[in-house]
Amino acid sequence: MCMHDEATPHYIDMIDQTTLGHRFIKQEFDQVPRVGWQIDPFGHSAVQAYLLGAELGFDSLFFARIDYQDRKRRKDDKTLEVIWRGSKSLGSTSQIFTGVFPRHYDPPDGFTFEINDVSEPIQDDITLFDYNVQERVDDFVAAALAQANVTRTNHIMWAMGTDFRYQYANTWFRQMDKFIHYVNKDGRVNALYSTPSIYTDAKYATNESWPVKDDDFFPYADKENTYWTGYFSSRPAFKGYVRMMSGYYLAARQLEFFKGRSKSGPNTDALADALAIAQHHDAVTGTQRQHVASDYAKRLAMGYVEAEELVASSLACLAESTSKTECGNPMGKLKQCPLLNVSYCPPSEMTLSSGKSMVVLVYNSLGWKREDVIRIPVINESITIHDSSGKEIESQLIPIANASLKLRNYYIQAYLGKSPSVTPKYWLAFMASAPPLGFSTYVLSNVKNPGSLTTLSTIYTSLGSDNDTLEVGQGNLKLTYAVDKGKLTHYTNSRNLVNADIKQSYVFYSAYAGSDVDPQASGAYIFRPNGTYPIKTEQQGLLTVIRGPVLDEVHEQINTWISQITRIYKGKEHVEVEFMVGPIPIDDGIGKELASQITTAMETNKTFYTDSNGRDFIKRIRDYRTDWELQVNQPVAGNYYPVNLGLYMEDEKREFSVLVDRSVGGSSLEDGQIELMLHRRFLHDDTKGVGEVLNETVCVSEECTGLTIQGKFYFRIDPLGEGAKWRRTVGQEIYSPFLLAFTEQDGDNWTGSHVPTYSFMDPSYSLPDNVAVVTLQELEDGKVLLRLAHLYETGEDKDLSVVASVELRKLFHGKKISKVTETSLSANQDRVEMERKKLRWKIAGAVKDEAEVFRGRPVSSSNLVVELGPMEIRTFIIGFEPSVHGLVLCT
Amino acid sequence: MCMHDEATPHYIDMIDQTTLGHRFIKQEFDQVPRVGWQIDPFGHSAVQAYLLGAELGFDSLFFARIDYQDRKRRKDDKTLEVIWRGSKSLGSTSQIFTGVFPRHYDPPDGFTFEINDVSEPIQDDITLFDYNVQERVDDFVAAALAQANVTRTNHIMWAMGTDFRYQYANTWFRQMDKFIHYVNKDGRVNALYSTPSIYTDAKYATNESWPVKDDDFFPYADKENTYWTGYFSSRPAFKGYVRMMSGYYLAARQLEFFKGRSKSGPNTDALADALAIAQHHDAVTGTQRQHVASDYAKRLAMGYVEAEELVASSLACLAESTSKTECGNPMGKLKQCPLLNVSYCPPSEMTLSSGKSMVVLVYNSLGWKREDVIRIPVINESITIHDSSGKEIESQLIPIANASLKLRNYYIQAYLGKSPSVTPKYWLAFMASAPPLGFSTYVLSNVKNPGSLTTLSTIYTSLGSDNDTLEVGQGNLKLTYAVDKGKLTHYTNSRNLVNADIKQSYVFYSAYAGSDVDPQASGAYIFRPNGTYPIKTEQQGLLTVIRGPVLDEVHEQINTWISQITRIYKGKEHVEVEFMVGPIPIDDGIGKELASQITTAMETNKTFYTDSNGRDFIKRIRDYRTDWELQVNQPVAGNYYPVNLGLYMEDEKREFSVLVDRSVGGSSLEDGQIELMLHRRFLHDDTKGVGEVLNETVCVSEECTGLTIQGKFYFRIDPLGEGAKWRRTVGQEIYSPFLLAFTEQDGDNWTGSHVPTYSFMDPSYSLPDNVAVVTLQELEDGKVLLRLAHLYETGEDKDLSVVASVELRKLFHGKKISKVTETSLSANQDRVEMERKKLRWKIAGAVKDEAEVFRGRPVSSSNLVVELGPMEIRTFIIGFEPSVHGLVLCT
Repeated sequence: MCMHDEATPHYIDMIDQTTLGHRFIKQEFDQVPRVGWQIDPFGHSAVQAYLLGAELGFDSLFFARIDYQDRKRRKDDKTLEVIWRGSKSLGSTSQIFTGVFPRHYDPPDGFTFEINDVSEPIQDDITLFDYNVQERVDDFVAAALAQANVTRTNHIMWAMGTDFRYQYANTWFRQMDKFIHYVNKDGRVNALYSTPSIYTDAKYATNESWPVKDDDFFPYADKENTYWTGYFSSRPAFKGYVRMMSGYYLAARQLEFFKGRSKSGPNTDALADALAIAQHHDAVTGTQRQHVASDYAKRLAMGYVEAEELVASSLACLAESTSKTECGNPMGKLKQCPLLNVSYCPPSEMTLSSGKSMVVLVYNSLGWKREDVIRIPVINESITIHDSSGKEIESQLIPIANASLKLRNYYIQAYLGKSPSVTPKYWLAFMASAPPLGFSTYVLSNVKNPGSLTTLSTIYTSLGSDNDTLEVGQGNLKLTYAVDKGKLTHYTNSRNLVNADIKQSYVFYSAYAGSDVDPQASGAYIFRPNGTYPIKTEQQGLLTVIRGPVLDEVHEQINTWISQITRIYKGKEHVEVEFMVGPIPIDDGIGKELASQITTAMETNKTFYTDSNGRDFIKRIRDYRTDWELQVNQPVAGNYYPVNLGLYMEDEKREFSVLVDRSVGGSSLEDGQIELMLHRRFLHDDTKGVGEVLNETVCVSEECTGLTIQGKFYFRIDPLGEGAKWRRTVGQEIYSPFLLAFTEQDGDNWTGSHVPTYSFMDPSYSLPDNVAVVTLQELEDGKVLLRLAHLYETGEDKDLSVVASVELRKLFHGKKISKVTETSLSANQDRVEMERKKLRWKIAGAVKDEAEVFRGRPVSSSNLVVELGPMEIRTFIIGFEPSVHGLVLCT
Repeated sequence: MCMHDEATPHYIDMIDQTTLGHRFIKQEFDQVPRVGWQIDPFGHSAVQAYLLGAELGFDSLFFARIDYQDRKRRKDDKTLEVIWRGSKSLGSTSQIFTGVFPRHYDPPDGFTFEINDVSEPIQDDITLFDYNVQERVDDFVAAALAQANVTRTNHIMWAMGTDFRYQYANTWFRQMDKFIHYVNKDGRVNALYSTPSIYTDAKYATNESWPVKDDDFFPYADKENTYWTGYFSSRPAFKGYVRMMSGYYLAARQLEFFKGRSKSGPNTDALADALAIAQHHDAVTGTQRQHVASDYAKRLAMGYVEAEELVASSLACLAESTSKTECGNPMGKLKQCPLLNVSYCPPSEMTLSSGKSMVVLVYNSLGWKREDVIRIPVINESITIHDSSGKEIESQLIPIANASLKLRNYYIQAYLGKSPSVTPKYWLAFMASAPPLGFSTYVLSNVKNPGSLTTLSTIYTSLGSDNDTLEVGQGNLKLTYAVDKGKLTHYTNSRNLVNADIKQSYVFYSAYAGSDVDPQASGAYIFRPNGTYPIKTEQQGLLTVIRGPVLDEVHEQINTWISQITRIYKGKEHVEVEFMVGPIPIDDGIGKELASQITTAMETNKTFYTDSNGRDFIKRIRDYRTDWELQVNQPVAGNYYPVNLGLYMEDEKREFSVLVDRSVGGSSLEDGQIELMLHRRFLHDDTKGVGEVLNETVCVSEECTGLTIQGKFYFRIDPLGEGAKWRRTVGQEIYSPFLLAFTEQDGDNWTGSHVPTYSFMDPSYSLPDNVAVVTLQELEDGKVLLRLAHLYETGEDKDLSVVASVELRKLFHGKKISKVTETSLSANQDRVEMERKKLRWKIAGAVKDEAEVFRGRPVSSSNLVVELGPMEIRTFIIGFEPSVHGLVLCT
């Protein structure tokens, strides 16, 4: 569907958008692409190479943008063309021939032929003054030989075009026709119209050996002070929205399948389209103009509205399945709360009249049962909650912070054009659990029983007046704060005996504005800091601590435009930080880029790890590149990496992990420290093409203010070697939060008249902890696309980095599987055929020892068990017996 | 062939280029254009309207560029569409419906659809976000109604395009298709694809009456300080070259016909093409970039080289016709001297060895016998000249001025890449005469007879030391100089008793450079002076006077970069001034525009007259426009007018006339004064499209210096009412100078072995003094295109402003005319048919009294006499009896 970015999309989105495109190409043109053509993205990821490359059945991958130092070295070494092994776990089984262009993705100088381009056209009319055939042929041959000098084999490729070209194709083809004719007549080189596939085959036919490349191509700099690491964090609200939609889409497709897909009725197609295009390298990157960003968001919102309707009707259908006739046309009164992020949820913000109750359906799109705390705004403290089995459960009322209420009022006005009619007093928090691929039900009523299990939080405000410390957390995990400074100082886990001194703070980088002699400004693409400024807490020592049976919270107002809430949930062993930053002040004429830093005393030896598109972790060493001797020009920007899942660092005993709720830029600029860039606002464009200053605002009526970003990150310290389980499992839960649906009900007889709890799978079955259902989607022909992902890398966890098995018969409980076909990752070709056609490239030089690669065996039709090796993702198209399909799901 | 300029071309060039284009269109497409489409030229001429409009059979003329004050007034009055009568002499018989666009020649704002244009396209896909059909239809209707409000009748025209558009036409047509569809569906206005012809017919069909417009639309200003009067003089060397080629082409076509046209051999076609394209409104205007100017000049030079060969062979054929067999392949040893303007003529710059002589053929392309002084450089003072009859004639040797020799050496190096091998010592000047459409022969030998008629000039250098006066001129005309000041002071003609105090001087205008608040700089198009600076003579009082039997010369070195030679020829009653200006110094950072002023005490009452393209004279009144009340913003630039033939002014007794040798800008900024702008050089572009500074240089090897301009103007004072005869007759002689050809000959037996003198016409016949042969050209089919022009306006001269007659049988002496067909001016249609089809427009309001119009009657086949009324030009295609055609010409 688009040439997606490689830094800021999640791998599930990359797979989805590519699948949409490849299946379209297959359907419309009966073609299966063989080449990755990622010429423009600003750096290149390991996941792109192996997953969205080799696993698609691609024979090669081409791109233009590579660090200028790396390119120079590769030209000298003739290593612009390599065999790229992006995954340590899958090694040579997922390698791809990769070609980096020797310059940009345009032709050599003098061979661009758009209207108004300045290249001299071939004039071959001998009677005209500007006849120049020999001269132009000489130019052509010289440019070809120059490229041949930095290229292995005698085949080279020219990209005859670039951005915005071919608006009138004739001007190009006319010249290319002539060049091909006259150059071949000349005979020194042979020129032909070619394609990347033809080029790949020609390269392969030479039987040449190629050097191996590991890891990835981040960060990307095209000049000394031009590091393309700003866009890792640009437009954080949009990045958050894309991630939220991504998780919702995954769940919605499951529910669409459970109900039975309707081609005409509400379905997930519009959301699929919107999400696909949002992965473009000028979309989720945040490098588009404002009106384009608004358009992307609008498309997502429209796709969401349709998917929301589908989700409501599917859940209603599943819940109402005792009254079978209604299933095809469920009442659909289930409401959802997409603005819960700004504390807005009309269904929960009402006083239930006597005899009425509110039903909350909690859907879990993961393949395993899970428990998580749910928070909804309420206006009333008289609340009783019963679970699916009718048992009353514990809950906690937390006063909504002033900063949150202010944000709520302003943004509701901005989004809905009107003020909310009521103001909730509390967050109601309770621990919910739901079965795999299923839901459970919680019923809330406004009855305050004596001895109710709903508790008001206690509130303690420290005034920073004494030298005491203050401890937060009621379980294994405890955080200690210094009351006088109002600062976090210590982290302890009494279960695994991990503890550490710890600080958390904010800094901003002042944006370089560009000057006549050195015009490169910081902007949407480029991160070019002009100094680091720690942000001092204005009311030092002012902490508000909220405690209760479900969670503890610490509220901090850092300054007028930064506040945060730190949460520790009972029974969870990680810290959740919800930050609220903005509007970033720029009235001093200085653009700013805000980061949060977490500092420990860990000796991390310049080393940290960041994920590749939310999947494989890659080792990063500060001021160092594996592939060449780095000349350091930008010690901050040049050490920033994209973060989609999280990042971590290690010392001899511990590992410190941070997870994120959206794509951000992150680094470890000092040993023991991790930082995340959370928000950016500018006064200058960085002149990389967008032509507009990145200065996001939100408007009520005619008045606009800088955008405020609210988001979360999570951190945890584990004994060395034990962090992966949290990163992978909680990482998956962050990606796929509970999906909530609300309805009002007469009395509390819901559980009597409805299905209170449901799982699509065999009730006794659960996916193993190391496997996620990445895709479960009904295709247009009624078949099902199933994609299963092993969540762990080789060696990452002593228990879970092993081959996992999934029993399809239990997964598709109640349906009769007629056929299982394994396909390429994008489901556009048979996997066996794809493997058969794969080119086997020769490797130059000594090959490093590879870890053993485990891959699942072909699925046997007898047991229908899918095996998955570490990091393996397997894609299947599954057919069912006709009689079983359809209404059975609601029976 | 092109959309010619209307200020700087000569009418003969305008006719030639239009004829070439119209005959091509007729031949290729069998179409006869009906509309003049002069949308871009920077002001519009009377000759364009009546001659290159009505006389072509056009029904209408459209253009965009009109003075901003005039346009405003015409929008208010709904007089943007008028009946234009460009010629006082031809009045309503040569009128044309003329439409001025209400804005520029582009669509209303918001309707331009080139790739990258910002107009919003119609989005008519209702499912897309930017659906905007009603909004865009409303825009369209609003724009149409706005234009209708300033237009008579309910038809309006939009020019759907502008400069450089339709590089990809589809983007336009796609939108126009949609607009036409939806606007017509809307129904408030009716939109259609149209043409100017359809528009004209629709206007005509309304039976509306239209106001009358006289004179022309000069000067053009598009803003207060943006007068497009600089280009009247930009690139004076190129303008001079075009004029020189124009006269040469007229003569060469005659000789081509006399010899018999060869389609393959050397012919005048290339010169015709080059001259045609050189009339473009960014060619002879001087408003092209340097490399484009060079290209135009190169084409002219190539056309010339071919025509030169043809001319040589035709003259040789005519001269050698005693030996008939050689005529078809004459020896062609005749040489010509195109660089005579820089004193370079190799055939005349040699010492003739004993027994050899040099033969000079003098061809006269005018229809009457004429006498003129010929000047050729020689290296030897021992010279004897004999005329065609063998009689020795008088001649004068004039030392070549140092300034001329310096120019010669530098420019020969620049043009030929080598220094000339010899340096001539003298100009040899003698009075030559030649018959109409024929030649005479002069034979020069290096024999110094005792009592030779070749005289060395006397040289007198005044040192400005005394108070005496100095008189120059040996006939009726005498100029008086004040010796102390070294300045011209008085003009006397003893024959007609005219005399006047007179001064002649130079000034420069410093060019406005443009500022942030007022960016309009002076440049190639725009004349925006920033102060007037008189040029002081550096060595005041230093005059060199050269006298002899043929002419007197006064040499003045004004300063280091301006010098001039003033000449009075014996037997002529006008003054010739040859100026040499340049390189204009700009190292002070100031662009300069150089003018020469001639000042008398005449009381001219703000009034002067300038020609329209070398034809009709138009009355100009300083700081005044006939059509509206002028708001004067630029008192200098706003009073400049184009001059192609000359300009004059009158008081109660006298008229003072100036003639020019090329297109220049001129004015009379004070009563009694006339000025001509001679050269311009800048440091800034005037941002009107050329995008390059007008700063002409000439280069030898790698070193370039500012261009020097050498040219001539002529002046004369006549009693009131008697000036036209000089302006018209000498004007024609300046346009068509003698064409010289040289050859070396053994002995002096040339006149014995060759035809010494020749006329194409009946030897006893001459065209009347008021008629010129504007075109005499053999067409491809062997027929002849003859164009005769009456040279006088109604009332201009008491004797010559009358109907004139030409006897075709005597003109085509020795040929048998079989058929005479009168055609439109561009010879693409029968004249009778053209007159029949002509639309008869209704005039609004009272019509001014018109002078009676005289036009010649149809040519009777019995006497074949062509009558021409004042200012009439008649065009004929003439067929001949086959037997007579061809070789007979050389018998």
